[in-house]
Amino acid sequence: MVSLKENINLLSKIATSNQHGENSPYFDGWKAYDQDPFHLTGNPNGVIQMGLAENQLSPDLIEKWIVKNPKSSICTEDGVDQFKDIANFQDYHGLYEFRKAIAHFMGKVRGNRVTFDPDRIVMGGGATGASESLMFCLADPGDGFLIPTPYYPAFDRDLRWRTGVQLVPIICNSSNEFKITQEALESSYKNAIESNIQIKGLIVANPSNPLGTTMDKETLKTLLRFINDKNIHLVCDEIYAATVFNTPDFISISEVLEEMEHPINHELVHIIYSLSKDMGLPGFRVGILYSYNDGVVSCARKMSSFGLISSQTQYFLASILSDESFVEDFLRESSRRLAKRHKFFTQGLEKVGITCLASNAGLFVWMDLRKLMKKPTFDEEMALWRLIIHDVKLNVSPGSSFHCVEPGWFRVCFANMDDQAVDIALERIHAFVKKGKENKVATTKNRKNKPFQKKLRLSFSSRLYDETMLMSPRTMSPHSPFARSPLVKAST
Amino acid sequence: MVSLKENINLLSKIATSNQHGENSPYFDGWKAYDQDPFHLTGNPNGVIQMGLAENQLSPDLIEKWIVKNPKSSICTEDGVDQFKDIANFQDYHGLYEFRKAIAHFMGKVRGNRVTFDPDRIVMGGGATGASESLMFCLADPGDGFLIPTPYYPAFDRDLRWRTGVQLVPIICNSSNEFKITQEALESSYKNAIESNIQIKGLIVANPSNPLGTTMDKETLKTLLRFINDKNIHLVCDEIYAATVFNTPDFISISEVLEEMEHPINHELVHIIYSLSKDMGLPGFRVGILYSYNDGVVSCARKMSSFGLISSQTQYFLASILSDESFVEDFLRESSRRLAKRHKFFTQGLEKVGITCLASNAGLFVWMDLRKLMKKPTFDEEMALWRLIIHDVKLNVSPGSSFHCVEPGWFRVCFANMDDQAVDIALERIHAFVKKGKENKVATTKNRKNKPFQKKLRLSFSSRLYDETMLMSPRTMSPHSPFARSPLVKAST
Repeated sequence: MVSLKENINLLSKIATSNQHGENSPYFDGWKAYDQDPFHLTGNPNGVIQMGLAENQLSPDLIEKWIVKNPKSSICTEDGVDQFKDIANFQDYHGLYEFRKAIAHFMGKVRGNRVTFDPDRIVMGGGATGASESLMFCLADPGDGFLIPTPYYPAFDRDLRWRTGVQLVPIICNSSNEFKITQEALESSYKNAIESNIQIKGLIVANPSNPLGTTMDKETLKTLLRFINDKNIHLVCDEIYAATVFNTPDFISISEVLEEMEHPINHELVHIIYSLSKDMGLPGFRVGILYSYNDGVVSCARKMSSFGLISSQTQYFLASILSDESFVEDFLRESSRRLAKRHKFFTQGLEKVGITCLASNAGLFVWMDLRKLMKKPTFDEEMALWRLIIHDVKLNVSPGSSFHCVEPGWFRVCFANMDDQAVDIALERIHAFVKKGKENKVATTKNRKNKPFQKKLRLSFSSRLYDETMLMSPRTMSPHSPFARSPLVKAST
Repeated sequence: MVSLKENINLLSKIATSNQHGENSPYFDGWKAYDQDPFHLTGNPNGVIQMGLAENQLSPDLIEKWIVKNPKSSICTEDGVDQFKDIANFQDYHGLYEFRKAIAHFMGKVRGNRVTFDPDRIVMGGGATGASESLMFCLADPGDGFLIPTPYYPAFDRDLRWRTGVQLVPIICNSSNEFKITQEALESSYKNAIESNIQIKGLIVANPSNPLGTTMDKETLKTLLRFINDKNIHLVCDEIYAATVFNTPDFISISEVLEEMEHPINHELVHIIYSLSKDMGLPGFRVGILYSYNDGVVSCARKMSSFGLISSQTQYFLASILSDESFVEDFLRESSRRLAKRHKFFTQGLEKVGITCLASNAGLFVWMDLRKLMKKPTFDEEMALWRLIIHDVKLNVSPGSSFHCVEPGWFRVCFANMDDQAVDIALERIHAFVKKGKENKVATTKNRKNKPFQKKLRLSFSSRLYDETMLMSPRTMSPHSPFARSPLVKAST
């Protein structure tokens, strides 16, 4: 057997470079969960997975539909007549019925205020594969894409790893609820040019992962004017479009594009979509690239060959998504359940003074634990994260893994578990905070003998933090460094 | 809207380079078919698709199994209990039951003479995606892979387009039935080194597409010794393994690897597999990379994210492939049907003196039409191909699109149609040859007035060729330039 060193010579730079980004705490947390997964009866003290943005609140709706529609699958007695044709179907355009149904669904999710052309629907292997193909179409190795922080950690893998594209951060922070500004865009662009990086585009996620917020119309217009002025691409990742559970409603870039007062070059605009989040079907690997650029549609379609959606899955989805009445009911009910869960979870956090960025979408909250840290550093954030993973036994994801520039934020997923697991997670958080309070008293008394920082990374019992962490924003002292934080109670 | 020229600046080199190889006649033939597709009743004079290597002879066996096994799909009333867990499953290792079942299936297809480890099964988006991921793991842009000619045209897209890898031909020809020799390997390797191309490996298809032949043990040993001596990779594309319908039996590289007398570095060996051909399921996009190299398994598994197999499909396949008795019956019956079709088709060709390379596998034959060409040039081959597409209305694929160095060979697929379509295809070929005979007499008489070459590309009626084309090899004059051709009647 060859050694690792020999393998480095045998394999590619891509294989040996670790540019896949899977060494981030984001993925480490998953490993901790994998080693000791919570189960209500089987392993009630295990780690609860709150690092996975899955939508598991509404599969029962789809299950009911399946039972009523035995013809929707080629693997049933009722549907098997279609088996031969569908199992053989490998055209990289995709089943026309599938493209038509998903284009219509995309319009519905966007309030029917915009329509999508089935002939611009390009299939990809999940949003992951669709995003990578788009990068291959738009940029050469070394080219840069601007991206607002914080952003989805796996973009480092999806967009950069095999394409050689660079991601250039646009710094956003809590002073304006992490919104993208014209100034931040220009500054980031200017810095890139000065560093000799050719900027080919801007990529944004709307609704945002990890923020759970949606962009307002003015921001979207700012983005369009910016990319049009610079003659660079705009990629909008809208895979959480139907997870919007509260006002304001979701506004797609496609809607704003059509109503801009001054002309925007449509060929610069591309949308990434998926059914993983909105329908809770990540296993089905439905990635969609919708581009207003004919050259991109044509090229990306050829690239579809590397990640076509299984025709078995296309057939099923064409059938279910074409059921107007089901789709309407599903979208309404899914949104209602997400709202309910979000409200329950954020109110549970607020009981012990933990707040989150106000949000109206997504399968997660952006939780502010800055008050739990003695110093606003990423070392402290990591120490706190280890405590949460190993002592509190919740797998949440630290802000640093999302390239957030402010330490102390954590993404916490709330839609991938049942009510009982949420109850237990909240109980654990309550106990953690309560214990912190008690320890604070004890530790203050013994401070001279036992400097608290020594054991900071080992266990919660030795951890001290400001009392402000136990207070809701409304009761915080106006002199607290966090008093001017943008955080407000998440409304539902 | 921007012009194409402007798009060239906006898009990547990959998007604007045409390196996808889809401008080859291989794909052009498909377009001709698409514009005028044959249908027994709806369009009986349309183009018959013989350019598509699909296995449509045995879907009825799978259909019967489906009806008997309603639990095998998560989209049935009987299987819906599994819906939630499976639709959510997105682990890039794949469902363990799926990996186990396909590893076992791979062993069965190889006569149970070798076993495969489920933990080395890596999923890809079809063989297309799996092959590309392997290239990304093994080679940097500019690196070369040796490949024997003729080879599958879409390798130019799959292996090169986005990876930047170069394919360096190993010249094979009919003098030894297109077999790979030690000399050809060494010569190709030496030429590449002299051209400053770093060779990272050798890729072969066994059974061969387009030849329909399998490699003997001695050849496989030669390949292993060669790559081991050079310390380069060996990639074996075995996606046609279960299409072997006649002796000799299929021998996998994995079998030979285990019985080599002198030690071979296993970490250099990788297998590409798929269910598209062997089970006739191209729509399901099941690509498998099986590597003996831990580093490649680990890296390619991360790349699985770009082309995971739909979990709905994994679940169904885990179920059907785990049915030992079904699998055995299926493999036996599928092979029997392929043998029968192959025999019928090749005997039909022989009736008018057309022979094929002797073959024992695949969904196609490698048809020798060298005798139909006045000169052994690729211009003549293309003229003949256009005649076949437009006049005879059969979409076959010219050898040049497979990078064959000898003009006059054509790949003809025989398993993607029903018996009636085969009858009609053979009738058309018979008529074509008969008309050629008659025209030969007429044209010879009028030669001085109407030079035949002028209309060569326009219609069959003005085409002349040697009478030898109408003779079987056994009756050819020993002085004919084709008398020493390797072609023998395809045995069944």
